[in-house]
Amino acid sequence: MDITNNVVENEALNRNHPIITLLTDFGSKDAYVSALKGVILSICPETKIIDIAHDIPKYDIKYGAFLLSQTAPYFPVGTIHLVVIDPGVGTTRRRIIVKGKRNMYVGPDNGVLSLAAEKEGSIKMVEIKKKQFMLQIVSKTFEGRDVFAPVSAYLAKGYEIDAFGPIIKNIVKLALANVESRNGKLVGEILYIDGFGNIITNIVSKSIHCSEIPVGAPLTVSIGEQSKKMRLCSAYEAVLVGQPLMIIGSSDFYEISVNKGSAKALFQANIGDVIEISVPKRTC
Amino acid sequence: MDITNNVVENEALNRNHPIITLLTDFGSKDAYVSALKGVILSICPETKIIDIAHDIPKYDIKYGAFLLSQTAPYFPVGTIHLVVIDPGVGTTRRRIIVKGKRNMYVGPDNGVLSLAAEKEGSIKMVEIKKKQFMLQIVSKTFEGRDVFAPVSAYLAKGYEIDAFGPIIKNIVKLALANVESRNGKLVGEILYIDGFGNIITNIVSKSIHCSEIPVGAPLTVSIGEQSKKMRLCSAYEAVLVGQPLMIIGSSDFYEISVNKGSAKALFQANIGDVIEISVPKRTC
Amino acid sequence: MDITNNVVENEALNRNHPIITLLTDFGSKDAYVSALKGVILSICPETKIIDIAHDIPKYDIKYGAFLLSQTAPYFPVGTIHLVVIDPGVGTTRRRIIVKGKRNMYVGPDNGVLSLAAEKEGSIKMVEIKKKQFMLQIVSKTFEGRDVFAPVSAYLAKGYEIDAFGPIIKNIVKLALANVESRNGKLVGEILYIDGFGNIITNIVSKSIHCSEIPVGAPLTVSIGEQSKKMRLCSAYEAVLVGQPLMIIGSSDFYEISVNKGSAKALFQANIGDVIEISVPKRTC
Repeated sequence: MDITNNVVENEALNRNHPIITLLTDFGSKDAYVSALKGVILSICPETKIIDIAHDIPKYDIKYGAFLLSQTAPYFPVGTIHLVVIDPGVGTTRRRIIVKGKRNMYVGPDNGVLSLAAEKEGSIKMVEIKKKQFMLQIVSKTFEGRDVFAPVSAYLAKGYEIDAFGPIIKNIVKLALANVESRNGKLVGEILYIDGFGNIITNIVSKSIHCSEIPVGAPLTVSIGEQSKKMRLCSAYEAVLVGQPLMIIGSSDFYEISVNKGSAKALFQANIGDVIEISVPKRTC
Repeated sequence: MDITNNVVENEALNRNHPIITLLTDFGSKDAYVSALKGVILSICPETKIIDIAHDIPKYDIKYGAFLLSQTAPYFPVGTIHLVVIDPGVGTTRRRIIVKGKRNMYVGPDNGVLSLAAEKEGSIKMVEIKKKQFMLQIVSKTFEGRDVFAPVSAYLAKGYEIDAFGPIIKNIVKLALANVESRNGKLVGEILYIDGFGNIITNIVSKSIHCSEIPVGAPLTVSIGEQSKKMRLCSAYEAVLVGQPLMIIGSSDFYEISVNKGSAKALFQANIGDVIEISVPKRTC
Repeated sequence: MDITNNVVENEALNRNHPIITLLTDFGSKDAYVSALKGVILSICPETKIIDIAHDIPKYDIKYGAFLLSQTAPYFPVGTIHLVVIDPGVGTTRRRIIVKGKRNMYVGPDNGVLSLAAEKEGSIKMVEIKKKQFMLQIVSKTFEGRDVFAPVSAYLAKGYEIDAFGPIIKNIVKLALANVESRNGKLVGEILYIDGFGNIITNIVSKSIHCSEIPVGAPLTVSIGEQSKKMRLCSAYEAVLVGQPLMIIGSSDFYEISVNKGSAKALFQANIGDVIEISVPKRTC
């Protein structure tokens, strides 16, 4: 996926500027995130460490998987994405590395890596087993620091993925609700709600289900007991301040927004809610 | 503005360590900030990326303009400040670059860059037009990622500002309330309230309006219906814990504080409120 | 403290990758943290700046001291830890540098550096006095920017600690409550509660007070008026979701947790509360 005409696509060149991104549910009041960073820099001091997010809902694998899949394509080839959203820490759930066509992913095998990895296509997957890439003592409660951080740092140093353990054929996948089309209605679910209150649906604008909705088309959007009329617009400013609209978001999903307001508040919506989009006279 | 005796003032030298700062209203629960970082590092992997703030009130141009003007002078010459507080995203508001005497500023032309740029003095201003410095597809909702981030990264690589589009003569300026002096009272407004509850006024200590207030001078400060007596002090500890004081803040504005407490709570104050400072027997 | 078999323990090598960590109570809505970063990069552009935390309770020296002591051991030898939790800013409290066996610490002499420095052992301590390492104008309210940040940056450039001022023999130490063992009960206090609601006690698992508690041992834990039965477990998953357990945390202290829940909420506990652990038939 070429994001710019001049993007750095040379993996060898990228070796000189290794990047590790961090996505965790550790919050910003504790020192857990910085412990990951200290371990990484102890092993590979050249690493550029970039935070994706830490203040996400605790244990929310789906939320993390979505964030990662949204942002990973914008990083240079060879970037290592370290994810520690790990409600099963200390149990026998596997610890994995996924090498995709562009990026590498390190984290627990609970689905959190699967959306991003599927989006770009996986080349190889490995279960992390070799103790020489872990800290000497591995605590039962903080494998992020003791396993995933050092493994990521050794990847940044250039170790091949095969060095870390046996190849595996499958990883746990995150199930997203299907999008259905019935009686002129598109039925999907709320994937995510961002900090502006924008509602991101799981319905891709170039849906396979039916012809594309034309800009300007009048719609009725229903979430729970709330139904609102709006149009598909191409900028927030197409409607008055405080009015709702549907828009094709920055990741090709249909999004419900309010110009300078919160669609979340308008619909009293939550992640996971069912959403229906009715398009009169549409050729579904 | 020399901030230290040994500051790096050599722009050429700084080219080897390009810095881009980020100031947005994107919050810390989404992946929008990291998308900016991924795009920047894809284009200019050497960039050091520094966050100014992201958890600021959404769409608050004035708040962002103040933060930027406070912190920009402390960065090395040649730093690129990327600001995405952009309620008009997707509309025809211009996208601009301002080259100041020390720093470069990239963002929407809505006033958010103007305080910082005025403070150091602008040398050249350009409207961003050339598509080769943008991502291939520019979404209507996320120009930060698709326009401002790549433009900043190409500046970091050393492209001259003229390359990005036509020179413009004016940018949108942010209007700050005037400071007035009448009947021995200084009347201004609350520019900003920080996380400690310190109230920053728009009244500069070396005011042109009248003679400087001497340290120790007794004052009456009024905000809304609250009036409190205090003195101009040179450290918080000059008053008892819980007591108010006026102090010359770290940016030469008069500030109202409470020793180990919150002036915001004491006065029930908000940004934009009118503030009156009465100085008995003062030669205004 | 060797944290990995391959850790970078060579101080000279580390000179090429100077690291400064930042721990403050400045929050994330202001530009104070970025001002520190601007000053550091103006003086030592090569520095890698790593945030430990900024969203901690204002003025909470004990909280900061604990965070620092938890995370500092995971950073490479030669890392400079800059701490600005400084309720006494502008007063005569000393400003200090502590050179430990592994790391350097810069901050106010109020105890915030003492836990981390004691943990690794101090080699030399200095009071910061020399004005050539400070900004030209030192404000009374922001010595973090005007003193501690430039001092840290000059340390990153390789200046010896003796250059900054006179050697001192003692620094202010933070008093932690003693752990007592009486009638088969271990009595300590709550050191810290993390963002997951895990309660970290000040009782080290390899206590000098008595024999180690065996895994699986039944316990009664009391905090305030709440008493709960639980066992010492080796992973959160050893108990059902929502059930409490005691575990040896990632820093060898006993911790009270709830599997996928909050021990803080269960016990209505706060930092500083007394905690009692009863171990039936134990050989204390």
